[in-house]
Amino acid sequence: MQISMYRASVPVFARNLRNLAAILKKAEAYAAERKIDPSVLLNYRLAPDMFPLTRQVQVATDMAKGCVSRLAGVDIPTYDDKEASFGELVARVERCVAYLEGFKPGQIDGTEDKSVVLKRPTGDVTYHGLPYLLEYVQPNVYFHCTTAYAILRHCGVPIGKKDFIGAT
Amino acid sequence: MQISMYRASVPVFARNLRNLAAILKKAEAYAAERKIDPSVLLNYRLAPDMFPLTRQVQVATDMAKGCVSRLAGVDIPTYDDKEASFGELVARVERCVAYLEGFKPGQIDGTEDKSVVLKRPTGDVTYHGLPYLLEYVQPNVYFHCTTAYAILRHCGVPIGKKDFIGAT
Repeated sequence: MQISMYRASVPVFARNLRNLAAILKKAEAYAAERKIDPSVLLNYRLAPDMFPLTRQVQVATDMAKGCVSRLAGVDIPTYDDKEASFGELVARVERCVAYLEGFKPGQIDGTEDKSVVLKRPTGDVTYHGLPYLLEYVQPNVYFHCTTAYAILRHCGVPIGKKDFIGAT
Repeated sequence: MQISMYRASVPVFARNLRNLAAILKKAEAYAAERKIDPSVLLNYRLAPDMFPLTRQVQVATDMAKGCVSRLAGVDIPTYDDKEASFGELVARVERCVAYLEGFKPGQIDGTEDKSVVLKRPTGDVTYHGLPYLLEYVQPNVYFHCTTAYAILRHCGVPIGKKDFIGAT
């Protein structure tokens, strides 16, 4: 199989998000077992001005669905950012994985030079598809998934790097 | 430009490691300013059984140089894991970036199906080049770079996600 814009996006994000969902389920079980209010973990931050766990998960999914939608040229589905439990967060992640996996390679492949415009408070930023994927979305998805992992690891949830990387 | 095994490895890792070096320099300056013994930051962990900052940086570089060497079919350079200061860690990262950037696209492209064997205590694991890059090395590089960032962010170093993602 040759590397392609599809191969470097849909299966990569889906894999990461599936691993994230499994980590969130372990965190939920840990909270139940230790009688920790789940909201303590859901609102935990590694620094006072960093996003809490819930927001890390929301942004990871937003990055993935935004990327695939923009490359394919379809509207980005909006998810209400109202998750207040591990179950709701896992459902968001699983909904995003199902959305990603609904795309066919032909919708994403060949978008290396496609213009992608991101609206920002400081003004629009225009990327080409390839650097948008490799230098903006991939690092963002990994950043937020890793930070979610790090928050839970810091809080004692019994997870290891294998949970993050997934089965080989 | 078309996506390729080279494009998804060398420039991606080099960019991440350059951003990491810049973050480490900010951490060094922060420690000096606040009169924090740099070894406190270098040995800081987010959990007692997680790697400290220094090891996160070492593994990030090991993953990147191992990947590019294996795909190109050359011996992997060994770096002594003896860094004991921010300056030495930055030098390691910069040495790795220079090594990565010495490879030409022709050495890496077309390695999607190449067999890559990783020696592990539990037995050898064989990957094809494409999943090795996308499902093993990329997540590992991002995992360790993000964790290094998260350790420093947790310790109050004035950095933001922009330092991690880099200039657009």
